[in-house]
Amino acid sequence: MTTQFESAVIADLERLVPMVESALLAPLFDFEAPILQEAARYSLEAGGKRVRPVLCLLAAESADKSAETALSCAIALEYIHTYSLIHDDLPAMDDDDLRRGKPTNHKVFGEGQAILAGDGFLTEAFGILAGAAKLTSEQKVQAIQTLSEAAGWRGMVGGQSLDLEGENLVKEGKPYDYARLQLIHRLKTGALLRASLELGAIAAGADGGIRSALREAGAALGLAFQIRDDILDATSDSETMGKRVGKDEGKNKITYPKLLGLDGAAKALEDTTERAVGLLAPLPNPSSLIAWARFLSVRAN
Amino acid sequence: MTTQFESAVIADLERLVPMVESALLAPLFDFEAPILQEAARYSLEAGGKRVRPVLCLLAAESADKSAETALSCAIALEYIHTYSLIHDDLPAMDDDDLRRGKPTNHKVFGEGQAILAGDGFLTEAFGILAGAAKLTSEQKVQAIQTLSEAAGWRGMVGGQSLDLEGENLVKEGKPYDYARLQLIHRLKTGALLRASLELGAIAAGADGGIRSALREAGAALGLAFQIRDDILDATSDSETMGKRVGKDEGKNKITYPKLLGLDGAAKALEDTTERAVGLLAPLPNPSSLIAWARFLSVRAN
Repeated sequence: MTTQFESAVIADLERLVPMVESALLAPLFDFEAPILQEAARYSLEAGGKRVRPVLCLLAAESADKSAETALSCAIALEYIHTYSLIHDDLPAMDDDDLRRGKPTNHKVFGEGQAILAGDGFLTEAFGILAGAAKLTSEQKVQAIQTLSEAAGWRGMVGGQSLDLEGENLVKEGKPYDYARLQLIHRLKTGALLRASLELGAIAAGADGGIRSALREAGAALGLAFQIRDDILDATSDSETMGKRVGKDEGKNKITYPKLLGLDGAAKALEDTTERAVGLLAPLPNPSSLIAWARFLSVRAN
Repeated sequence: MTTQFESAVIADLERLVPMVESALLAPLFDFEAPILQEAARYSLEAGGKRVRPVLCLLAAESADKSAETALSCAIALEYIHTYSLIHDDLPAMDDDDLRRGKPTNHKVFGEGQAILAGDGFLTEAFGILAGAAKLTSEQKVQAIQTLSEAAGWRGMVGGQSLDLEGENLVKEGKPYDYARLQLIHRLKTGALLRASLELGAIAAGADGGIRSALREAGAALGLAFQIRDDILDATSDSETMGKRVGKDEGKNKITYPKLLGLDGAAKALEDTTERAVGLLAPLPNPSSLIAWARFLSVRAN
């Protein structure tokens, strides 16, 4: 049975993913390092749901501007996400051999080239924003500042560091509470989803109230996304997910289901989704993002 | 015996390095990931000659503006350089245990945290430029675009990838010529030194002619820097260098002395230095940068 919001999400994907895909590979031309180019292309073409770029484009539309306005922001976000996956999969980090049903970047190209491919995506993301044809200099600077904050020490990279450290706390039997889990996910997953909606607002030239609503709704969506991820890891199988599951169990990771139980995690997911919906409702054109909020809370992979 | 240009360089260092050091650690406050913060601080405080930031400040002065104008650019450059050292030292890359006479970042904090510290420096560098108080939005965008191009796939990261690949070519007995060596160093070391001088020009609001002269002089200095590095690696000892030397020999690396002989490498170094001096001479205030060009070609570590 397809619900109304699932149909809306599928329609958005059919409309916006081709726009993202068509712009994603362009920065890969004109290259003097062929193996690096191949490694970068491999990870871009590995598929993925393009959730962050699509949310960024929808955020621009929710503020009554065209999706095209935010396309450079969307590509920069997918580059940051792609870099983070390549580095997270490395043996020194999550040590994953499989991503989206395919061997991870370092399994194909070696660890050195994989680290460099990630470094390259991260660097190019900021170059893409600086070169964005549809943004004013002021908008470019705001987008770069927002993305740097979300991706760096105070955002995604900080969250990943705390997560690595947390595995050691658990191994050593040290306390690990709900506040710490929330902090890690606010930084590790939440910050980039928050930035996805905020960059859409910046590209749309939205006023402070709309920008702030999209930013906070993005933070709530990020948290909901992570809770759903933890629930899926605890209850799904590798074939559905296209990656190894049950891995949190084996790796001393603290998850929402472990800390709150499956019912408690489901309740936290529901509350967070409703918070996002409440923030989105007053926007000029909120229906797509609201459908996405509901969809992300029940997605199956 | 201290030559005239050595005295000039020492005076610049005494004047400008404290300015760099005083601004370098500021972005490290207000942190929620303590191990990451410690790892980042460790690499910033490991010393280093601060060549790139000082050259950036001198480039602004050569265009008749104050060094302070370019301080944010200088810090961003040192962050990029610091990230590149942390990642280059990893086992999957150059596999170095010693840097500036101290254990490398991953030997102290583990590979995972070292990768993240590097990712953080790279990300923060762009945030620092976007938040630079003394630059207009237009200057910020130009600086970010220049730095991204110099550090990314078409610059430093691309050069490092070609260098890694080159080691395999040599192992397999495949041809490796002077053009390839020059390409690698133009990208790997040259691009960031070129950007160091160009960011100084951008911060100074210099006209196109001055910016282009500083950019090209930076490229020549970068090449000279690398040739001198190769000569030192072939002829110096670990105590003087503060890092393992003779490592190029053991690692199938092609170097200038190997390809041109020591005399040929010395000649190439001299030619490149004279090219830089020729480009710098017409600038409004070139004497410091010219002294640096001469100094870099004879430096002992």
